[in-house]
Amino acid sequence: MAIFQSEEQYIGELKRRSGLPQGFSVATTTLDFVSREREQELTMNLALLLLDQPSDRFAGVFTSNRFCGGPIVIGRRRIREKQLRAVLINNRVANVGAPGGVEDARKLCDTLGGLIGEAGERIMPASTGIIGWRLPVAEMTAALPKLIDGLRKDSALPVARAIMTTDSYPKLHREDLGQGSIVGVAKGAGMIEPHMGTLLVFLLTDLSMDRNELDRCLRSCVESTFNRISVDGDQSTSDMALLFSSGRKPAVSEDSFREALEMVCSRLAEDVVRNGEGVGHVIRICLQGAPDPNTAAAAAKAVVNSPLVKTAVFGNDPNVGRIVSALGDFADAARFHLDLNRLRVSMGGVEIFAGGCFLLDTEKEARLNSYLKESALDALKKGFPEHDRQVLLEVDLGAGDARAEVLGADLSYQYVKENADYRS
Amino acid sequence: MAIFQSEEQYIGELKRRSGLPQGFSVATTTLDFVSREREQELTMNLALLLLDQPSDRFAGVFTSNRFCGGPIVIGRRRIREKQLRAVLINNRVANVGAPGGVEDARKLCDTLGGLIGEAGERIMPASTGIIGWRLPVAEMTAALPKLIDGLRKDSALPVARAIMTTDSYPKLHREDLGQGSIVGVAKGAGMIEPHMGTLLVFLLTDLSMDRNELDRCLRSCVESTFNRISVDGDQSTSDMALLFSSGRKPAVSEDSFREALEMVCSRLAEDVVRNGEGVGHVIRICLQGAPDPNTAAAAAKAVVNSPLVKTAVFGNDPNVGRIVSALGDFADAARFHLDLNRLRVSMGGVEIFAGGCFLLDTEKEARLNSYLKESALDALKKGFPEHDRQVLLEVDLGAGDARAEVLGADLSYQYVKENADYRS
Repeated sequence: MAIFQSEEQYIGELKRRSGLPQGFSVATTTLDFVSREREQELTMNLALLLLDQPSDRFAGVFTSNRFCGGPIVIGRRRIREKQLRAVLINNRVANVGAPGGVEDARKLCDTLGGLIGEAGERIMPASTGIIGWRLPVAEMTAALPKLIDGLRKDSALPVARAIMTTDSYPKLHREDLGQGSIVGVAKGAGMIEPHMGTLLVFLLTDLSMDRNELDRCLRSCVESTFNRISVDGDQSTSDMALLFSSGRKPAVSEDSFREALEMVCSRLAEDVVRNGEGVGHVIRICLQGAPDPNTAAAAAKAVVNSPLVKTAVFGNDPNVGRIVSALGDFADAARFHLDLNRLRVSMGGVEIFAGGCFLLDTEKEARLNSYLKESALDALKKGFPEHDRQVLLEVDLGAGDARAEVLGADLSYQYVKENADYRS
Repeated sequence: MAIFQSEEQYIGELKRRSGLPQGFSVATTTLDFVSREREQELTMNLALLLLDQPSDRFAGVFTSNRFCGGPIVIGRRRIREKQLRAVLINNRVANVGAPGGVEDARKLCDTLGGLIGEAGERIMPASTGIIGWRLPVAEMTAALPKLIDGLRKDSALPVARAIMTTDSYPKLHREDLGQGSIVGVAKGAGMIEPHMGTLLVFLLTDLSMDRNELDRCLRSCVESTFNRISVDGDQSTSDMALLFSSGRKPAVSEDSFREALEMVCSRLAEDVVRNGEGVGHVIRICLQGAPDPNTAAAAAKAVVNSPLVKTAVFGNDPNVGRIVSALGDFADAARFHLDLNRLRVSMGGVEIFAGGCFLLDTEKEARLNSYLKESALDALKKGFPEHDRQVLLEVDLGAGDARAEVLGADLSYQYVKENADYRS
């Protein structure tokens, strides 16, 4: 992916991408409220995604964390409705673990429905922010007319901005195909933010794919992109990805739609990893030679989630022992027979383990230490997220044909700082 | 457990504990060598645990990491021998992932056996230290006569010191029972040290328990103590726990032996957690209301291993959202039905979650913030490990009668620093 030289260049690129597919409009607004839990004055963003007409072309996936927010409870039900019309999104308060959270979200959708002449059940709620607090329903209700007044058809960028919490830049990607396009926005800063429900993804298209196609494509793309990033192994209480089609443009083949959707999703997913405030290195694990795809993905995640591997990468240490140890530990837990004599591990294209032994010497270690230093993210370029700096780890288990790619991050001082800072 | 006011007091207590059970002698020595992998001059400690006579009363458990060291490969075989006589232990080089590692360890045992008039197969090797390097076999062989010359019967403390790597203090505990005693030493600094194989535990007794009793007691105690500590979820390549009886004193009942052994093991295990260089808080999770013991232990570990929970505790943040989210994530992964309405969570005796809702207000948060600050380990008292400072988390899943206790640690800057520092 391109490396941006300046903020202007990056914003210009975002604008280019941000044109809405036909059949949608969006709006954003802000409101002030005092949280009753902490008596703190805060500002909240509201955003609205609106289809011109109710659509029966949509799909959604939701977090499987059993401790989930009010919007997830409602969303799981409404994704089975015949038609949907809109998504109402707020940041700042995640509406998780708060008394009356489901009822609060339902009321807001009903009120919005009354204002736009739509049934409340056709509106999906989505929230991200602090866990445990109640939504400021009165203030949000009062802001709805202003929100609706601001509906526009030109750009998805305001929504990408409005759904940010601790994200340091908006995440927006597009693919044009056939006579239409797919535009996606996401929110999420590497699951690192205190008390924040994490990943929200909204995908809009005007290509008239049918509901089953959208469902299959969304599930497959989420599995190969968002479910393959892992910053700290914690699954959020609020994750959701929604895909809507306005049906305004002719359909394309399911395969080409899936391919374009996967491109949008994988770029959004990479942005999420890179945006982690505490991320010093992005780590890409390409694992092959697994007996089946599930084992491949789980083994790759075991490596990228090992605190000892993560801290070694942060310290620019080509620590092959920790990588192999993480694989050995995984093999034990997964009851998978790991043949060390067939295992091969490379870092940055340099082989570091084969034939049951470490292939490191002083010269090779120095070379890999430099490679790791050069792969670190440039802290000064914060906000210019798209670049190709990453640490590449290739693993061959030598036990089959299945493969998986997983994107993760190192474990840095900054990660601890971000997550340890007391909220007050 | 007692809090020590001074280093003298602590050393005095260690000496009191360190008397060897009858029928054993120990020795330690040091040697210098140049590592061929890094051309570095280093010092290694050697230690010897020797039974006066070969014994058929012993038991051992070994790491189940598939990537394990030469001593583990040999130990798994020798633990099935009819009789054992000695353990030869070195620090500095873990003998893991190095070519010829099994053969190197075997040769050293054979040479030692020749010197003490014992079959090499009756000697267990144990190593801890850097992964990937070969043992300096020539230098170690040359040091064996001096090692044997130093055999003594008075104190286990030199062994507790000799097996240290980055440990900041020796770990030694004893229980007297019947006419004899159990003395245990352990090595391990919270799995936090770069490239170090981690946990070695040696338990000596003169009580003439039979082999089956020793095996049952060791397995049960390791399960309830060392397998219930979790500093970063990584399992070492070198972990082993060995228990030997000299049979010099009358047996006691299996139950009372198990109880005493569990006391020794649990104190050693707590020392290991507290000794983690990067450990700012020890976290004790008492979980009840699980459908079965495995679920209880796994749920407790899921909480104590969550990076978001660990960083929150480091930051003195009573972050109930992260605790409940970790449980929700675990419930999903384990396909366990978590009823949030029956879940109860307390911190330091203060209820923070019940009836599906957070029970936090500004006053309670301030109180828990103080509790967390007061529970932090005193960095100035390093080396005085035994105290009762810990963060107590009580969880009731409300889904059965099984319970588990797990000891873990927070995630601090110091943890990252320790693990990221490049070895050179």
